Amino acid sequence: MGNRVGGKTLRFSREPRITSRYTLVGPMEGRGPYALDFSEILPDDSLGQKTAEKTERLMLELAIEKTLQQHGTKIQDLDFLIAGDLLNQITTSSLAASTHTAPFIGVYGACSTFAEALALGAVLLHGDFASQVLVGTASHYQTAERQFRYPIELNVQHLKTNQMTVTGAAAAILSYAERGPRITHATIGSVVDMGLKDPHDMGSAMAPAAFQTIKQHLADTNRTLGDYDIVLTGDLGKQGRKMLRLLLERDKFEGLERLQDGGSQIYGDKQSVGAGGSGAACVAVMTLGYALNCLDSAKAKRILVVATGALLSALTVLQGESIPCIAHAIALEQ
Amino acid sequence: MGNRVGGKTLRFSREPRITSRYTLVGPMEGRGPYALDFSEILPDDSLGQKTAEKTERLMLELAIEKTLQQHGTKIQDLDFLIAGDLLNQITTSSLAASTHTAPFIGVYGACSTFAEALALGAVLLHGDFASQVLVGTASHYQTAERQFRYPIELNVQHLKTNQMTVTGAAAAILSYAERGPRITHATIGSVVDMGLKDPHDMGSAMAPAAFQTIKQHLADTNRTLGDYDIVLTGDLGKQGRKMLRLLLERDKFEGLERLQDGGSQIYGDKQSVGAGGSGAACVAVMTLGYALNCLDSAKAKRILVVATGALLSALTVLQGESIPCIAHAIALEQ
Repeated sequence: MGNRVGGKTLRFSREPRITSRYTLVGPMEGRGPYALDFSEILPDDSLGQKTAEKTERLMLELAIEKTLQQHGTKIQDLDFLIAGDLLNQITTSSLAASTHTAPFIGVYGACSTFAEALALGAVLLHGDFASQVLVGTASHYQTAERQFRYPIELNVQHLKTNQMTVTGAAAAILSYAERGPRITHATIGSVVDMGLKDPHDMGSAMAPAAFQTIKQHLADTNRTLGDYDIVLTGDLGKQGRKMLRLLLERDKFEGLERLQDGGSQIYGDKQSVGAGGSGAACVAVMTLGYALNCLDSAKAKRILVVATGALLSALTVLQGESIPCIAHAIALEQ
Repeated sequence: MGNRVGGKTLRFSREPRITSRYTLVGPMEGRGPYALDFSEILPDDSLGQKTAEKTERLMLELAIEKTLQQHGTKIQDLDFLIAGDLLNQITTSSLAASTHTAPFIGVYGACSTFAEALALGAVLLHGDFASQVLVGTASHYQTAERQFRYPIELNVQHLKTNQMTVTGAAAAILSYAERGPRITHATIGSVVDMGLKDPHDMGSAMAPAAFQTIKQHLADTNRTLGDYDIVLTGDLGKQGRKMLRLLLERDKFEGLERLQDGGSQIYGDKQSVGAGGSGAACVAVMTLGYALNCLDSAKAKRILVVATGALLSALTVLQGESIPCIAHAIALEQ
């Protein structure tokens, strides 16, 4: 296996690049500290659609269209469209894909979906199976609330450990065009289930998955946290972020000041959002917006994105199952 | 793109092999004409579990374990576990994966999921990213009924065009070991939506997707239907099978006698199952059981599996969306 290093990490020696990207977010995300990092802030969270599901789909379609436009790529020249989302049977992605002719690969990894798509896109390029791959995802606060929790009309109070699903969408084109941040490594995580069952504290459930993937990635690449300017976890939220730090400290990892968490940071500190953001779009917009802007502006040379996902469903919660979690790491360089 | 032929078909010049496989099915599937093709027929459809969801998960776990055992592979030597299923957030696969340490790639393509997993597994092997990949899926009549339609306790009457979700699971190991059928090509389909909205006739909705993928595959490979001993569509059912024949006849395709449909055939003609079988396990057990047995016994030298999927959800049906469909083709040779 020439394209692996260490035990589980994929090494892309012909480094695929992210050669076009587009992010759009809802009004609340636009009031956070990363407003300038996103391509577009929507004026409202409905876009004139009759249902939030239609809005979510429209956001993904817009992100796909804009990314293609910027790249000067026609949809028929795309080799693959890889997408997934939180809705049952990833219908946001399938319906958005139905307006396109590109071969469609549907993926699911909850809030880690975008990183899974990035990794598979890089594999297809590096393996010479594609020359242009589009990856995308979307989520919407209202669709996630009513599917996983309660309809927002009930106005159910949230706990401090609850996370707010990010309203937004993101799409990127991977290719070997000349400019754009490079994907150098991907570490696909295994499923970690520590027996936690509280769907109102998914950060604590996901932290061990993030820890395991970070540990694996650093061991495989013979790197330290300090070798990355930023280690951006996805969606751990304030509670999960604390847990991850404890796990890393316990194992004497150094360089913890490099840790940032997209979920904890996306809304800033002034909005009432429990432990922070989550949702498939969260790590996607923070990666394509914030992280890649840091690379573009040379604020960072090397970033590790660690996207986490809680692989539960409303039914597994009702049936008393614990929450299986996963994290995938993607190493990016200017 | 050295590893593509024609417009969209992947060509695996270093042909990955299916070097271990295990299929298990429920009692009804075991009363059909393919009973001898399956590795195991379950004595009942509960396996002593309290819920059908737990049974579905257990079936997948059993299929994974048995496949690994037969291959003499330890789970820690697997490079990837690729799986998906019909349940919301593919929880059957995630929960089954949580008992293993292999890096997990969650996929979703409804009843075409297994073919998507096979294609990605072959890509990972061919690209030198893996040396052993396990692919798996499962479905269960009761879990699908209550999620997509009604709880079986209501005993709702089915229509002639309804299909019965296959109770079963399948797993296979892909590797470059010496024996086993080879995967030579994969054609990943794009999403086709002809505007059909009837969730009780998914065969008619899926037929155009099967047609498009077959047409694309044959054009890309410069082959005819007659170049395959069997063209095994997944889960079109009796209604969808008719539609596919009409579409192929209209475009003057020859060799229609090579067409078989797993969904239409799995239960035989004596059981009351509407238009036949469906479900993520249907094309998976028919491929790993029936089709590969035909290759093993030299009844066939070359088979094209065309796995179809209806990418709807209970919510998209209620919201009046039409049914996006997809089909992926996998070419197999002895």
